[in-house]
Amino acid sequence: MAVHGGAGPDEEHIHENLEEYKKGLAEAVQAGYKVLERGGSAVDAVEAAVKSMEDNPIFNAGRGSALNSKGEVEMCASIMKGKNLKAGAVAIVKSVKNPVSLARYIMENTSYVCMSGEGALEVAKDGNIELEPDAYFITDHQVDTFLKARNKKSVQEMMKERVHATVGAVALDSRGNLAAATSSGGTSNTLPNRIGDSSQIGCGCYANNKTCAVSGTGDGEFLIKGVIAHHIASAMEFTGTGIQEACELVIHEKNKDIEGDIGVISIDPQGNFGIAFNSERMHRAWMSSEQPMQVKIYKE
Amino acid sequence: MAVHGGAGPDEEHIHENLEEYKKGLAEAVQAGYKVLERGGSAVDAVEAAVKSMEDNPIFNAGRGSALNSKGEVEMCASIMKGKNLKAGAVAIVKSVKNPVSLARYIMENTSYVCMSGEGALEVAKDGNIELEPDAYFITDHQVDTFLKARNKKSVQEMMKERVHATVGAVALDSRGNLAAATSSGGTSNTLPNRIGDSSQIGCGCYANNKTCAVSGTGDGEFLIKGVIAHHIASAMEFTGTGIQEACELVIHEKNKDIEGDIGVISIDPQGNFGIAFNSERMHRAWMSSEQPMQVKIYKE
Repeated sequence: MAVHGGAGPDEEHIHENLEEYKKGLAEAVQAGYKVLERGGSAVDAVEAAVKSMEDNPIFNAGRGSALNSKGEVEMCASIMKGKNLKAGAVAIVKSVKNPVSLARYIMENTSYVCMSGEGALEVAKDGNIELEPDAYFITDHQVDTFLKARNKKSVQEMMKERVHATVGAVALDSRGNLAAATSSGGTSNTLPNRIGDSSQIGCGCYANNKTCAVSGTGDGEFLIKGVIAHHIASAMEFTGTGIQEACELVIHEKNKDIEGDIGVISIDPQGNFGIAFNSERMHRAWMSSEQPMQVKIYKE
Repeated sequence: MAVHGGAGPDEEHIHENLEEYKKGLAEAVQAGYKVLERGGSAVDAVEAAVKSMEDNPIFNAGRGSALNSKGEVEMCASIMKGKNLKAGAVAIVKSVKNPVSLARYIMENTSYVCMSGEGALEVAKDGNIELEPDAYFITDHQVDTFLKARNKKSVQEMMKERVHATVGAVALDSRGNLAAATSSGGTSNTLPNRIGDSSQIGCGCYANNKTCAVSGTGDGEFLIKGVIAHHIASAMEFTGTGIQEACELVIHEKNKDIEGDIGVISIDPQGNFGIAFNSERMHRAWMSSEQPMQVKIYKE
C-alpha cells in the first residue's frame, strides 16, 4: 500500500504544516492498509486511502480543493482495477464529497469510463453518492491563495501557467490484484473547465495485474503528454525491468528534458514499490506486510 | 498521410451511402496530402484532413455530430506533435465549428492540454476560433437516429451502452515530423457530459517522432482502458518492432479478449503505415509519395 499527497516545489505553507501533512499521509496509508489486512480488495483499499485525503482539508482534493479563477471548486478523480482493466473517472465535478467514490460508481455501474460536470452529477444522484454544499469544500488556506493570486493575472497569463496538486494511492491485495486511484482539486486560479491528468487513464492513474499499479502527480500537463503511468507499465511489460527501475527510467531518463514536475508511486504484483519524482518534494507514505510504515516529504 | 472515419459494426446507413463515405475519405486524405506536397507541416496536414471531415456532414464530428440523450451536440477532439510532444484537446464542447482547430489553439497558446465545456468556449472566443449556432451541427440522419433510439431506453440502459464514432488523421512531413489528430461527435443518445477517447492523449491520439503517430477509433471506453495509441508507440519504443506488427500486436493480441470494437491508423518516421481493426469495418484512406491513394471501408 502506498499513497502520495502531491509533488512540486517546496513552499512555506508546507514547512509550516509539515507534521499535519505527515499525519495525513500516515492516516491515509493506514486507512488503505487496514482494508487489506481485513482481506479487503485492492480497489477498496485505494478508495479508502484516497477518501481519507479527500476528507482531510490539508490536501488539495475533495475538501480543501483549490479555487479556480472564478473562485469555484472543480475536482477530478480516477480509479482502475488491475485484474480486468476496468476504470472509472470524473472530470471538473462539483458538490461530490468523494470524487474517487463517484469514479468507482461509474466504473462499476456504467459502460462509460469518464463523465464530467453536470452529467457526472446526474450519475452521482442516480447512485446516491454523497453530496455536499459548495461551502464544505472551501478552506481558509485556499481562499487566501486564491485572493493573493487573483489580481496579479490576466487571462493570457493564466493560460500560460502550469498547474498541479493531487493525491493518490496504489495497492496489492492478498488475491494478487492491483488497483490505483488518483484525485485532485486542481490548482488555484486556473481557467475553469481545465481537465488534468487525474481523470485521464494512462496519465495520472493506471493498473494492470500483468505489470503494476501507478498513481502520478506533479504538473498534470506533463503527465498527460508523457502518458506517464502507462509508460511505466509499458516499460515493465516490454522489457521485463523491475518496478523501481521502470519508474526511474520514465521519470529521470525518458522525461529528463521536460520543464515540469512529475512524480509517481507504484506497486507490482510481488508487492515491490516503485517511487520516483523529479521535484523538490513528493508527499508520500508506504507500508506492507514486510515493511513498516514510511512517511516522507523531501528527497532523502 | 492516412485518415479514418470511424470503425464499428456494419450498418444499413453505411451501405446506402458507401460512395459518399468514400468520397469524403478521399477528400480528407487529399486535403492533408496537399498541405504536405506544398511543404507544409504534419500538424497542418492532420488539421486540414480532420477539418475536411468535421465540415462534411456525413461524418460524426463537427457538422453531423451525434445528438446525446438531451438532443444536444457535444464534441471532443485532440491533436499532438511528434517533434516536441506538445498536445491539445477539447472535451464536450459546443458551438465550435472545428473542434480540432480549438485543440490546436489550446496546444499552441496555453499551458493546458485539455479544456472542456464553457471554459473551452471562453478560450475559443479569446482565440477568435470560428463558432456556429447549434443548428449548423444538426443533420436529418442524426435527428432520425436520435428519435428512433429516444423512447427505447431508460437512464440505466443508456449507462450500459457502449458508444463510438470518430474521425482522425496521421501524417509525416518532409522534415520528418509526425502528427496525429482525432475528432468525434460522440454517439446518439449517450448521457450528456461523457468524455471519450478522442480528447484523451495516449488513448485516441498520440504522436512521437521516435516511434509513430496514431489515431484511434471504435468503442471509446476500450481505447481508454487499453491506452491504445500509446501502447502501440510503446511496443515500437521498447521492442523495436515495425509499425504494422505493433498495430496488430496491440489490436489483435493484447486486446483479443475485449468485447468492443477498436481500430487504428498510424504512420512511422519512415512513412510506413500501420492499420489494424477488429471490427467489421473501418472507414480509411491513405496515400504517400510512394503509394497512390487507397480508400477502403471493409476488411480486404
